[in-house]
Amino acid sequence: MILVMRRSATPEQVQAAVDRIQALGCQAHLSAGEERTIIGVIGDRRQLDEGVFDLLEGVEQVVRILKPYKLAGRDFHPLDTVVPLREDAIGGHPVVIIAGPCVVESRAQILETAWAVKEAGASVLRGGAYKPRTSPYSFQGLGEEGLELLAEASAVTGMALVTEVMAPEQVPLVSACADVLQVGTRNMQNYNLLHAVGEAGKPVLLKRGMMSTMEELLMSAEYVLSHNNPHVILCERGIRTFETYTRNTLDLSAIPVLKQLTHLPIVVDPSHAAGNWEWVTPLSMAAVAAGADGLLIEVHPHPDQALSDGPQSLRPDHFAQLVTRVRAVAQAVGRDL
Amino acid sequence: MILVMRRSATPEQVQAAVDRIQALGCQAHLSAGEERTIIGVIGDRRQLDEGVFDLLEGVEQVVRILKPYKLAGRDFHPLDTVVPLREDAIGGHPVVIIAGPCVVESRAQILETAWAVKEAGASVLRGGAYKPRTSPYSFQGLGEEGLELLAEASAVTGMALVTEVMAPEQVPLVSACADVLQVGTRNMQNYNLLHAVGEAGKPVLLKRGMMSTMEELLMSAEYVLSHNNPHVILCERGIRTFETYTRNTLDLSAIPVLKQLTHLPIVVDPSHAAGNWEWVTPLSMAAVAAGADGLLIEVHPHPDQALSDGPQSLRPDHFAQLVTRVRAVAQAVGRDL
Amino acid sequence: MILVMRRSATPEQVQAAVDRIQALGCQAHLSAGEERTIIGVIGDRRQLDEGVFDLLEGVEQVVRILKPYKLAGRDFHPLDTVVPLREDAIGGHPVVIIAGPCVVESRAQILETAWAVKEAGASVLRGGAYKPRTSPYSFQGLGEEGLELLAEASAVTGMALVTEVMAPEQVPLVSACADVLQVGTRNMQNYNLLHAVGEAGKPVLLKRGMMSTMEELLMSAEYVLSHNNPHVILCERGIRTFETYTRNTLDLSAIPVLKQLTHLPIVVDPSHAAGNWEWVTPLSMAAVAAGADGLLIEVHPHPDQALSDGPQSLRPDHFAQLVTRVRAVAQAVGRDL
Amino acid sequence: MILVMRRSATPEQVQAAVDRIQALGCQAHLSAGEERTIIGVIGDRRQLDEGVFDLLEGVEQVVRILKPYKLAGRDFHPLDTVVPLREDAIGGHPVVIIAGPCVVESRAQILETAWAVKEAGASVLRGGAYKPRTSPYSFQGLGEEGLELLAEASAVTGMALVTEVMAPEQVPLVSACADVLQVGTRNMQNYNLLHAVGEAGKPVLLKRGMMSTMEELLMSAEYVLSHNNPHVILCERGIRTFETYTRNTLDLSAIPVLKQLTHLPIVVDPSHAAGNWEWVTPLSMAAVAAGADGLLIEVHPHPDQALSDGPQSLRPDHFAQLVTRVRAVAQAVGRDL
Repeated sequence: MILVMRRSATPEQVQAAVDRIQALGCQAHLSAGEERTIIGVIGDRRQLDEGVFDLLEGVEQVVRILKPYKLAGRDFHPLDTVVPLREDAIGGHPVVIIAGPCVVESRAQILETAWAVKEAGASVLRGGAYKPRTSPYSFQGLGEEGLELLAEASAVTGMALVTEVMAPEQVPLVSACADVLQVGTRNMQNYNLLHAVGEAGKPVLLKRGMMSTMEELLMSAEYVLSHNNPHVILCERGIRTFETYTRNTLDLSAIPVLKQLTHLPIVVDPSHAAGNWEWVTPLSMAAVAAGADGLLIEVHPHPDQALSDGPQSLRPDHFAQLVTRVRAVAQAVGRDL
Repeated sequence: MILVMRRSATPEQVQAAVDRIQALGCQAHLSAGEERTIIGVIGDRRQLDEGVFDLLEGVEQVVRILKPYKLAGRDFHPLDTVVPLREDAIGGHPVVIIAGPCVVESRAQILETAWAVKEAGASVLRGGAYKPRTSPYSFQGLGEEGLELLAEASAVTGMALVTEVMAPEQVPLVSACADVLQVGTRNMQNYNLLHAVGEAGKPVLLKRGMMSTMEELLMSAEYVLSHNNPHVILCERGIRTFETYTRNTLDLSAIPVLKQLTHLPIVVDPSHAAGNWEWVTPLSMAAVAAGADGLLIEVHPHPDQALSDGPQSLRPDHFAQLVTRVRAVAQAVGRDL
Repeated sequence: MILVMRRSATPEQVQAAVDRIQALGCQAHLSAGEERTIIGVIGDRRQLDEGVFDLLEGVEQVVRILKPYKLAGRDFHPLDTVVPLREDAIGGHPVVIIAGPCVVESRAQILETAWAVKEAGASVLRGGAYKPRTSPYSFQGLGEEGLELLAEASAVTGMALVTEVMAPEQVPLVSACADVLQVGTRNMQNYNLLHAVGEAGKPVLLKRGMMSTMEELLMSAEYVLSHNNPHVILCERGIRTFETYTRNTLDLSAIPVLKQLTHLPIVVDPSHAAGNWEWVTPLSMAAVAAGADGLLIEVHPHPDQALSDGPQSLRPDHFAQLVTRVRAVAQAVGRDL
Repeated sequence: MILVMRRSATPEQVQAAVDRIQALGCQAHLSAGEERTIIGVIGDRRQLDEGVFDLLEGVEQVVRILKPYKLAGRDFHPLDTVVPLREDAIGGHPVVIIAGPCVVESRAQILETAWAVKEAGASVLRGGAYKPRTSPYSFQGLGEEGLELLAEASAVTGMALVTEVMAPEQVPLVSACADVLQVGTRNMQNYNLLHAVGEAGKPVLLKRGMMSTMEELLMSAEYVLSHNNPHVILCERGIRTFETYTRNTLDLSAIPVLKQLTHLPIVVDPSHAAGNWEWVTPLSMAAVAAGADGLLIEVHPHPDQALSDGPQSLRPDHFAQLVTRVRAVAQAVGRDL
């Protein structure tokens, strides 16, 4: 950490800051500039709040130097993490396509979708049994029954399963049938839930909050990792901006930036960001061109009858076209599906 | 709901849209304009997703007319809700000042703060036993022990108590000692938690998500209200914007807008939005001038030793000055403390 | 400036950075921490881009310490600037109310409005002759004829006049009749225009860009000030956020923050931010409670017939009520109108 | 346009709204729902502000149906516009690469860069003679001398030239040497400038404002088009969001969305959005995968000595790698360079 002293700071204030730093078990290095004195704080200070120094008399600004995450960063873990998933893996050479409906509606719907996406080239099945909905009057998912239907679809098709868990008390039940526990965008900072999925020992697909910075995403990953669960998959799904034409603004810059900051794999969900199925294919191609390790795509056999997120769901035939076009891009960037 | 048909929509597509509307138990009213045909959908459609119509052939745009919330709105509840709180109330004539430390650190700290804020003019005590922290390495609160200390401080001072609840399983314990259950900004769309506090039957102080629109805040209030809990207090605490000088941007426009849309009382937390105690007093005065029913202020006897949020906490003497200045504004707008 | 070296930086890279700093005429101070070495750059570096150091091998981050503005800041100009305006002034004890129509439409309209706002308590007249409009098909203002009508209204009522100038070539004409040259929100970073109004020698009312930070606002003020024009009035008028219920989000925190950073006076335009006249009065009261030096209010004798911005314009009778309520708040905070 | 009446609107208020609509030369179509009456306004209303109806008694909401732009939209111009550029064109089958330094610094620098980018595969040269800079103390470009150097570099290499014009009075001079006039992000709503470049008759590269919606971008294009200049190239260059790790958030969703809304070609500038050269190549590949018609890339022979934007500039060797990788993606999506 670096303390920047005010122009008007007195020598006594500088000394008091140095004393405080030393009292906290750190060392202080002074640099006196023409307009400002700055004080470097030396020592491992990840646990220290900037706030500890902010209020000292004469301090103008406190600049944090170390990144606030350690397990999620590349400093001590330079090699890419590959998350194993049955016979597949996320974060290795192939780009993984995860597909399925927003929410399980019936046995017929989930089985039909699972077979269709498998045939088209998806290797992992997604689908929601518990759905966070903005309105208390909207369909909230089939719950436990939905989990059973997902387990069946996963079993008969042989696809690994990703599904969302919304509360700590759901973790045991969801862990029993899912290969990957999804933490949704509205729960990215639900710390009790992060704690619970950290301890569940299953891979976690952590969706970026729609108004969370990349650093906050990595801090939430750190919560899971700090419970000895090394298998976190980050998911970019669009952030909230002033633009209203798309539901959210897909932040594809997050891919190269996160690849630099972290060893964790990164998948992209273009369906929720776009909010319109017609834009999902170009955004999927763009995500893979930018280096994404996987895609999360909403597919529904009859989008116009979907109970949730119909407008952004692809029909199976459109999804098959998406896979073909994405494969061409994956190959152009030296990967494959 | 209104369907706007594409310029190129055929008569068959218009008819298909009408058929679909009628199949859903609603009526369709057509208006053929020079460039577009529009179709009004008549019937109570709060439960219907716009998505149901979005994918019909020839539909360009679906416009929602009714507000998606009903219990929180003024249409069927024109009079202001007043939330009772021991001998006080929030939402009536007096402006209520809720004050206390960000987090309970020790018996001495909470008792000292409680007496100090009471003496200065606060009528409700706030303090956190469970704290959502961005970093897993930061102090997370004293938990159950913190609740006991809060209960003691509330008992000896006679002040009502507001404290945060972070997960459904904490609701019984927190309800046993708190007068108001606070739902934090990161949990505004934690629907399992909203369900649980809705059923607890205690007043709920619902903080606006830092990434949430006013409509989403009202939808989250609707979750609580729909569990037969009429006592929701809305709290504006700053939204996330591109501006980084303040931690968040306090949205004081939300006060007159929400007063128009809803009958629920509105309090303002300037401490978290500002992130700097020096700006808390002018923002408190502004909030009351704009019509806020209450303030939520962080006070700490020794901010430079606080374990959390020290920079934004007022010392008791500064808080006493705040109360004096806020009282003058309250009287100028025809209210009082 | 401070250079934070990568954990992996070699001694040669550190030395190269030091050499570069010295070659630029500055001094380098090293602090070697446990995980990172940091290098303080000593010397007046307002002219230096951070970019100069960003690309040096081994540099992880460059932290700017000095604020990038000098004339606008309080470091070398601690006392408040008071901008003289005929017999009035902005930035002194009284709060100044500037009012008038969005745009001059006719002689009758501007004269009627000018007399009405003067009678209600406004001391400065505003009105647009040149109007930036999002659509090329909207009314763009009366231009030179509008200026003449404004000059007449100002002359007969004795009120000082604020009006917008949109391009450098309009500056001479506008300066001939206006007391204050307004630079609009879309032109806050139109540097050719800032240059021109800087040289005109008239007070400048500089509106914050709707997506500009406070620091950028101060940098634009610096452009004007650096042309030896000391009379800049800053104007907060709402920033663009994800919230769509209000047109923009009025950032009242900007008042105490800017008061700390700069000596320039600050006025608030709640009309454009709100986009709805019903919210203008509470926001005006809030602005004054937070410390604003003035208000900029849109008033139209017949808002439902206005050619521009009708919905946010107050009728003269509502404006008179606003002035009464704002005066009460001004007195409560120790000022007056 | 559609007027949604309040639940409490009286029959007299509905009639008054109908009368007003008819007085404006339009027709009114009523639909009486269970909770609200809605009135469709029939007639060409692009010139009408919503504000005209907003203030009528009993009106709750005014919904615009027609898009506010006409010339830029696909309704009356379904086929893609191809902008001719010497022997090339933007908007046709090949993806066009525009490259060069942020700003012309010297004859040697611009000539070296021009030859290098041409050799690597760029077909259009970019470079700034007039530079909008946030700080009045930063290098502002060589002005007229810079234009001459650009003209020379364009002549000797045979590359078409894109350069920025900042003010109406610069248009004649810049038009004399440039093939395409660039309007910068801070000038997207500088209407006097849009007017001037519209009349210049040269192709215009219109950068999206960092604070502008896609609809506002199309409205600014409409300004140029309405001056009988059909050759507008839209440029996505990143929008301002809460995320600070990248300078701006590149909005690649804008590509498929704009392709749907408009016939104008779209190029992407990843350099300014990223602010870091290391992220420019993956973002360029993503842009082409998403359907961009061209790229605008900053290249500098010695980025660490650049007078502006060094950190985001590619060295010629890195640029050559970018071109190779982008070509592979272009071919994978059925195009080429």
